[in-house]
Amino acid sequence: MQRYFVTSEDWRGDRVTIRDEDAKHISKVMRMQVGDNIICCDNNGRASVCEIIDLGAGTVEVQVIQDVEMHAEMPVKVTIAQGLPKSDKLEFIVQKGTELGASIFFPFSADRSVAKWDDKKAVKKRERLEKIAKEAAEQSHRNKIPEVLTPGTFSDLLKLAQQYKIKIVAFEEEAKQQELTRFASALNTGTEGDSILCVIGPEGGLSEQEATCLKEHGFQLCGLGPRILRTETAPLYMLSAISYHFELKG
Amino acid sequence: MQRYFVTSEDWRGDRVTIRDEDAKHISKVMRMQVGDNIICCDNNGRASVCEIIDLGAGTVEVQVIQDVEMHAEMPVKVTIAQGLPKSDKLEFIVQKGTELGASIFFPFSADRSVAKWDDKKAVKKRERLEKIAKEAAEQSHRNKIPEVLTPGTFSDLLKLAQQYKIKIVAFEEEAKQQELTRFASALNTGTEGDSILCVIGPEGGLSEQEATCLKEHGFQLCGLGPRILRTETAPLYMLSAISYHFELKG
Repeated sequence: MQRYFVTSEDWRGDRVTIRDEDAKHISKVMRMQVGDNIICCDNNGRASVCEIIDLGAGTVEVQVIQDVEMHAEMPVKVTIAQGLPKSDKLEFIVQKGTELGASIFFPFSADRSVAKWDDKKAVKKRERLEKIAKEAAEQSHRNKIPEVLTPGTFSDLLKLAQQYKIKIVAFEEEAKQQELTRFASALNTGTEGDSILCVIGPEGGLSEQEATCLKEHGFQLCGLGPRILRTETAPLYMLSAISYHFELKG
Repeated sequence: MQRYFVTSEDWRGDRVTIRDEDAKHISKVMRMQVGDNIICCDNNGRASVCEIIDLGAGTVEVQVIQDVEMHAEMPVKVTIAQGLPKSDKLEFIVQKGTELGASIFFPFSADRSVAKWDDKKAVKKRERLEKIAKEAAEQSHRNKIPEVLTPGTFSDLLKLAQQYKIKIVAFEEEAKQQELTRFASALNTGTEGDSILCVIGPEGGLSEQEATCLKEHGFQLCGLGPRILRTETAPLYMLSAISYHFELKG
């Protein structure tokens, strides 16, 4: 069944109003009719099967029929801190990372980031990333839309890191040295409810200086297997492995 | 250092000839000169640091300086059998799947495959996928270029499956049922040298009939965590988890 996140202001008891793009999606793309069912989520854990009772001009009114249980969130909260990559790779990372269970995305300007975050376009760009996260969260049946933070500096990353118990860096120099144990060891120290911060460099990788600084701040520099992964593949590897470790290993 | 796979016919003792696109890449894109070093790989496990001794018209001659050790292959051989997806998703899967260590890609026409493999364009299309696999193997420092098989039918998949010890199906109906143990259980039965066949449906998923048939043929129908993954994300999850299981867990 099609899912839509609806902001809490649009829930009034067992009536929900769907607006803007989602309303258009229901009426124009899915061509749904009065009587059809969808699932509405409030981004706070509530999900309800709802029946369409009115298709207006630009809004859709639905009636809650039944709340449903959703357990699609990772038992640990994973933040992907991504050195700003080129072109549309950040969009790719947000889309696939949302499917794979990330809670927060934090893009940062790394020493070797060729791409710059254009302040003039920043608002639009972030809105676009938030839209991608929302749609991917709907499609993958997440309970919550991951947050996309405003891009920051390396110092902002160090400040952010203070809140995290497990801090991991994907570092290709370690992969070349056949470092194969730290990632799993770090995950082994985690339990349900923990927060994990994963740092990934941009295309050229993290600089020696950044890596040293992260190490001094309690980060584990990890190889992700013996192959060299692209900047946009490393976060997907980390999220998949974290899911496997905490959700499937049993 | 830049890597190139060179077919065995172009290795003569400690002299190697590089041709066509790779030669162009060396001279035009990388703008390398006589005296510069590259790594040549023979797709059979040999990798050698080589010095450029001649830049000709369309060919580059290099001299082997020193063989280097490479251990970038998975301890298990993973085949990704992918229900034909739409648009350029197969290219995406081959590129990222190569980085993540897949050995073989086998696209097959599934009941719900909207995309058809156009026989007229088949040769060109497969050449393009092979080129993507070669470039991704070079970039990720693989010892071997994964094979891209000619697309087949569901019956071809069942024939292929006879050669595999571990047979896994990513099945979203199981994810919805919160099936969370079979994937890890299946991997736990594996050891170094084993072959693993991973089957992923196209956009609409596998049909009930296909799933039942695979089950009857000894496949494990597995959930990959509680979120619903897109057809192109599921193989990346499986490969990452297999790498984590066999290469990192220790």
